[in-house]
Amino acid sequence: MAEQGAGPGLRGARCVPWALGELAEALGAGYDGPPETVIERAAALDEAGAGALAYLSDRRLKDRLQGCRAAAVVLRPADRGYWAGPALLSDNPELTFARAAARLHPAPEAPPGVHEAAVVAPDARLGEGVHIAAQAVVEAGAALGDGAFIGPGAVIGAGAEIGPGTRVEARAVVAGGCRVGARCRLEPGVVVGSEGFGFARDGARWERIPQLAGVRLGDEVEIGANSAVDRGTFHDTVIEDGAKIDNMVQIGHNCRIGAHTAIAGQVGIAGSTAIGPGCTLGGQAGFADHLQIAGGCHFTGQAMVTRSIDAPGVYSSGMPVQPGRRWRRSVARIEQLEALYQRVQALERAVAGEIGRGGEDEDSATEDGE
Amino acid sequence: MAEQGAGPGLRGARCVPWALGELAEALGAGYDGPPETVIERAAALDEAGAGALAYLSDRRLKDRLQGCRAAAVVLRPADRGYWAGPALLSDNPELTFARAAARLHPAPEAPPGVHEAAVVAPDARLGEGVHIAAQAVVEAGAALGDGAFIGPGAVIGAGAEIGPGTRVEARAVVAGGCRVGARCRLEPGVVVGSEGFGFARDGARWERIPQLAGVRLGDEVEIGANSAVDRGTFHDTVIEDGAKIDNMVQIGHNCRIGAHTAIAGQVGIAGSTAIGPGCTLGGQAGFADHLQIAGGCHFTGQAMVTRSIDAPGVYSSGMPVQPGRRWRRSVARIEQLEALYQRVQALERAVAGEIGRGGEDEDSATEDGE
Amino acid sequence: MAEQGAGPGLRGARCVPWALGELAEALGAGYDGPPETVIERAAALDEAGAGALAYLSDRRLKDRLQGCRAAAVVLRPADRGYWAGPALLSDNPELTFARAAARLHPAPEAPPGVHEAAVVAPDARLGEGVHIAAQAVVEAGAALGDGAFIGPGAVIGAGAEIGPGTRVEARAVVAGGCRVGARCRLEPGVVVGSEGFGFARDGARWERIPQLAGVRLGDEVEIGANSAVDRGTFHDTVIEDGAKIDNMVQIGHNCRIGAHTAIAGQVGIAGSTAIGPGCTLGGQAGFADHLQIAGGCHFTGQAMVTRSIDAPGVYSSGMPVQPGRRWRRSVARIEQLEALYQRVQALERAVAGEIGRGGEDEDSATEDGE
Repeated sequence: MAEQGAGPGLRGARCVPWALGELAEALGAGYDGPPETVIERAAALDEAGAGALAYLSDRRLKDRLQGCRAAAVVLRPADRGYWAGPALLSDNPELTFARAAARLHPAPEAPPGVHEAAVVAPDARLGEGVHIAAQAVVEAGAALGDGAFIGPGAVIGAGAEIGPGTRVEARAVVAGGCRVGARCRLEPGVVVGSEGFGFARDGARWERIPQLAGVRLGDEVEIGANSAVDRGTFHDTVIEDGAKIDNMVQIGHNCRIGAHTAIAGQVGIAGSTAIGPGCTLGGQAGFADHLQIAGGCHFTGQAMVTRSIDAPGVYSSGMPVQPGRRWRRSVARIEQLEALYQRVQALERAVAGEIGRGGEDEDSATEDGE
Repeated sequence: MAEQGAGPGLRGARCVPWALGELAEALGAGYDGPPETVIERAAALDEAGAGALAYLSDRRLKDRLQGCRAAAVVLRPADRGYWAGPALLSDNPELTFARAAARLHPAPEAPPGVHEAAVVAPDARLGEGVHIAAQAVVEAGAALGDGAFIGPGAVIGAGAEIGPGTRVEARAVVAGGCRVGARCRLEPGVVVGSEGFGFARDGARWERIPQLAGVRLGDEVEIGANSAVDRGTFHDTVIEDGAKIDNMVQIGHNCRIGAHTAIAGQVGIAGSTAIGPGCTLGGQAGFADHLQIAGGCHFTGQAMVTRSIDAPGVYSSGMPVQPGRRWRRSVARIEQLEALYQRVQALERAVAGEIGRGGEDEDSATEDGE
Repeated sequence: MAEQGAGPGLRGARCVPWALGELAEALGAGYDGPPETVIERAAALDEAGAGALAYLSDRRLKDRLQGCRAAAVVLRPADRGYWAGPALLSDNPELTFARAAARLHPAPEAPPGVHEAAVVAPDARLGEGVHIAAQAVVEAGAALGDGAFIGPGAVIGAGAEIGPGTRVEARAVVAGGCRVGARCRLEPGVVVGSEGFGFARDGARWERIPQLAGVRLGDEVEIGANSAVDRGTFHDTVIEDGAKIDNMVQIGHNCRIGAHTAIAGQVGIAGSTAIGPGCTLGGQAGFADHLQIAGGCHFTGQAMVTRSIDAPGVYSSGMPVQPGRRWRRSVARIEQLEALYQRVQALERAVAGEIGRGGEDEDSATEDGE
């Protein structure tokens, strides 16, 4: 494939230049340097060219400022000495940078209105400035808050509510009766309100247990591409304010996700599990059903969580990869562990007998009956 | 986020009251109490208020009946003594409750007809009472059985067949030539009939092997949001009657899933693997390709299945999470296992030499060549 | 469910017969047998009936040629002796077979044109022979190369580019500003260009870091159903030529996937990780962020990759399933490992004291501070 220079995406190609002083004022940040310094775009620190704004979040990266040609750098006041050029000063450089980038590269605006190829039920309630794109469907009794964005092909089910300023991107689905708060963002392909995995046994058969409740998303919840949140059985499945959910995450019926909890890609949370606020869940982690996870818990990737956790902390499981040959040996060694324990016990007895100390018998592995 | 009371979803808000006696008759269940007792809705046992029907599936939960204000409770005849109020009597309270809930809260009805913003090929065959929602597409030669529901934005490919009473929810896709049985349910975003992952090597390149067959779903198969079932190479990929599949499950080409097998979220099954009937697969479990799994096998979450299994039973793998510090120590200890085996062997030799017994040499881990 | 004979899918039902000699010439392969031998369809070796073409890729399967009724078999010249009937001769039988199958069962043709129920922006640029299906959306400034196929309900965002001969299947989304090369294939439900998981901390809150760049796919890239590729922050997320990606794969922002790398279902790759060319990633494998993985690495299913890898090879992790009882014992034994090391160390000291050798002290597990 031909290398054709950095792709600008859609948004990087849209630049609104700012003067350093005005940008600082708009962001409520300090600055140091000529206020008229023109900033044209946001960039990574190690590739920030002329006109760019970069940021230094971690002092350990300060060598990257050497030879940096950025128009200005966001950094902590205490780090001001590492950079001779114009600066935005902030105790949280990453946050200030994120906000500057949003001003330098505003998202494309969606003009208010309903596309002629959208289908909107006559009794749907549309707030001011709502945008409904082509091929979207808004069913009977749905309500869209002011400034809501419904992307191409998205579906808002009967009686669903979308809060003000919320974006439902292309082909996302908010099923009937579900409620989404303000300033949320549902990426393409998201499904909110699918029927959960609830079945009663009928001999060898399974019969569906009706899922009577919905899903309720707080404000500023974001959900990544092709993720799904099942509706509740009797109570809404709830995702609290500010929770951020990555792509292909599965959230089962009756779950509750705490405020500002961040969930990385492909995490799975089985039904009726509650995750506290302020947690971080690493990619592909899996949670069994009916667990209670305390706030402030952090799980590394692929963590396997089968019991409730009542204390904040870092939790991990799994073995990192090894070269195939070593891994096979490890698997074999683990499978032989039972025999190893017995050998050690035999040694202990032999040595105890020999040198006159009593052997210990602490070898029984705990084992649940089935 | 403001707590605004329990969300009723779409369906929980629709209540059709029943008299106890009539409900019992409709369900073929027994009852005990005034037949005119009015039941207005279904609820969980620990929150069932006036007018609600709850159920007691497990005698160990009988304390929850204390102070319960439910209008009636479904329970086993043998448990009748734990509850003084009106009761529905059933040997399978959960099943009877599920059926009662479906009557108390009927699903919204979709009126027969084709929405004017749907696109239906002229030669598609539509049964009686078919509902085709806005923005749906039904391609040439497709056939929909009586009472089939095609949701908003759903796509039924050329020549595909949808059985009577089957629901294809919003934005689900049934690709060309695939066949779905009766009374199935495909949740939003499901893809049935994607091209499987079949490629031939051409030096460093991969070249697609055409996937010539389709997918065949039996009756009463349910598939959760954003799951995918690949079409077969020469034979249909098959999902047998009554199998229930949760969200984001991947089923590779040429697989066969046995009748009434239940597959939890994010399970992955690689190509040409056959899972027997009556199995349960825990969330995020993974199955290698070309395996044969016997009927009646149960796999816990994140199970890693790399070999065929010929006997029913419970199968597990993986280590549950530990606090990060302990986990790191465990990882290190496992990586040192080889050395530990050697130390034990050295001890055995030393002790044997000392006390005149022969050492054993059983330490070689089985190791496949590469 | 009734067994109704093998399902032909859509494509297997379309057969274009070829004469052996002409097929060999079209494929640039040798042949042996009557050139007029009629071949009607492609089939698996162990079920190839009259008129079928099968292939022998592995000499160990040669017994399957016994009694095979195929019209012709593709095999290596050196294997010619195992099959008495007509043959196509190739040093890469699987590849030659794949190409023959594509000719025997051509994919349904999509006639050029824009469906009247598609929405195409007036300034979109459409190449020759483009097909845009019903309910598709092509936004402002998008460009479609010659022969591009945009399936039903698919969405091509503003300014996106789709290369010649590329297929964007039903309901796939290519978001604004993303670029897809030539002869690619995006299966139903794919999302290219979702906003990545990039957030700055603001106390307990998270605030989105704008994702300014796009996604760039090389030529002949294939992506499976419901997979997602996030757009880059400052640079495009890149998938190089010929990479093949299976269903429900998550590729984070700023990743780079090397040419001809094959990624099986449900793999997750966190942000800014680069995978070299010619790798194979087994199903459900997970990669942490900011890793560098050398070309030519092969990972088995569910591999947990937390560090960069600089040498080609096979890498694995995880324990295969065991019967539940044995697994519980293994878990317990692993949890007791620390104590076992101490017991072995005590034994070593005791034996050393007894037999006059010095004990070793090599028991401290490496442990990172937190």
